[in-house]
Amino acid sequence: MSPEATEDDALYQAALEEIDDCQSQIDSLNEQASEEILAVEVRFNTLRKPHYSKRAEIIAKVPRFWITAFMNHPQLSLSIPEDQQHCLQYLQNLLIEEFEDIKNGYKIILKFDPNNPYFENDTLVKEYRLEVSGQPKSVVTPIKWKPGKNILNDNSEKGSRKRKAFENSFFSWFTDSNHSNLDEIADILKDEIWPNPLQFFMMPEALSEEGDDDGDVDDEEDEDDEEGGEVDEGDSNYDTD
Amino acid sequence: MSPEATEDDALYQAALEEIDDCQSQIDSLNEQASEEILAVEVRFNTLRKPHYSKRAEIIAKVPRFWITAFMNHPQLSLSIPEDQQHCLQYLQNLLIEEFEDIKNGYKIILKFDPNNPYFENDTLVKEYRLEVSGQPKSVVTPIKWKPGKNILNDNSEKGSRKRKAFENSFFSWFTDSNHSNLDEIADILKDEIWPNPLQFFMMPEALSEEGDDDGDVDDEEDEDDEEGGEVDEGDSNYDTD
Repeated sequence: MSPEATEDDALYQAALEEIDDCQSQIDSLNEQASEEILAVEVRFNTLRKPHYSKRAEIIAKVPRFWITAFMNHPQLSLSIPEDQQHCLQYLQNLLIEEFEDIKNGYKIILKFDPNNPYFENDTLVKEYRLEVSGQPKSVVTPIKWKPGKNILNDNSEKGSRKRKAFENSFFSWFTDSNHSNLDEIADILKDEIWPNPLQFFMMPEALSEEGDDDGDVDDEEDEDDEEGGEVDEGDSNYDTD
Repeated sequence: MSPEATEDDALYQAALEEIDDCQSQIDSLNEQASEEILAVEVRFNTLRKPHYSKRAEIIAKVPRFWITAFMNHPQLSLSIPEDQQHCLQYLQNLLIEEFEDIKNGYKIILKFDPNNPYFENDTLVKEYRLEVSGQPKSVVTPIKWKPGKNILNDNSEKGSRKRKAFENSFFSWFTDSNHSNLDEIADILKDEIWPNPLQFFMMPEALSEEGDDDGDVDDEEDEDDEEGGEVDEGDSNYDTD
């Protein structure tokens, strides 16, 4: 190899090293940027928290707030059969709690009237977390159904056709800890309902039902002898206590 | 309506208004968070800029840096037929410039050797921007091909079969201002090559060709006489200019 070639080679190597140095600086700035963005998100989570708490407190006083919001959601309403609608009337609060390190997961917390006739629990939690291995995992509170009140079992008694229709129901979703990917109900609760539940609560019924009307047999209309429409037991007035 | 009902109704309305107030505060915090995150991104774009400039300066001195990086990218290499490989040897710099308001778009800037035998331009720019209407739009520098040097025309002379194969080639991508959605080449340049071109430049050929020849025939060893099939005009030594 000629001395010139060796010199060229050394210059070539030096250039690559210089590029690598620039790259390290860029990488380190990228990392800093990610950290700062995460810090902003964590800080605003803290700032939002008292407002979410206050919102939860007031919502708990409005009877059937959550079930009304749920039933006004065009997709979510399809997952809530009649008996589950009745049970979800006792849902007093829905909370989404992100982990301190928000990349690691979140919890969906459902607070029920402790006197609800369906189960002993007053709080049901479904937690989505990223394992150390990077695998997503979900953990759920076991529901302690009161005797004869397990809505999921009740469905199975009524034959496989009905059972199939409710496979993707709200409570079957809740109790299934395998739904890690493509978890439509979790996504709707976290990204659509939770950011602004009032807009669903207030949504005129006609609007929320628009999507259902065509073609499909919709048996929503002929259920009035039981509890009528979605949930309309008693008046939808403010609960004064 | 009984006086009680009226009172209940007023309390119900008051509760909804209180929820709405909380919601406004949450919305305003969300907006502030978005603004702060955007500010971090803009600030880091500024901080990264001098490092990108320095990187560009050094890279311009390494002959065939970009074409080597491109040909080592498993998908991008499929879009660069032989004549375009030859032309892209004259590419001295690739730059991605985000708009000041980064949500509005970015430019892919290709700087060529002004003495390149293919076209008069030394800079070709493909700009992706969001119109005020929200529509994405791309604008490209018209290439002033030197007489008889239009590679895109050359292909069309060789019959439709060959033309079809090159429909998604690098230069047909560049000149097509309709490729607004699913723009694979733009995405590769912006999100894979640009963040760290050195890793593609350095990538052993065998690795980048893995997808092409099945079996694990590793032809890294027998490249010593030429310098690797892709671009082999001249030595790949550092240009001492």
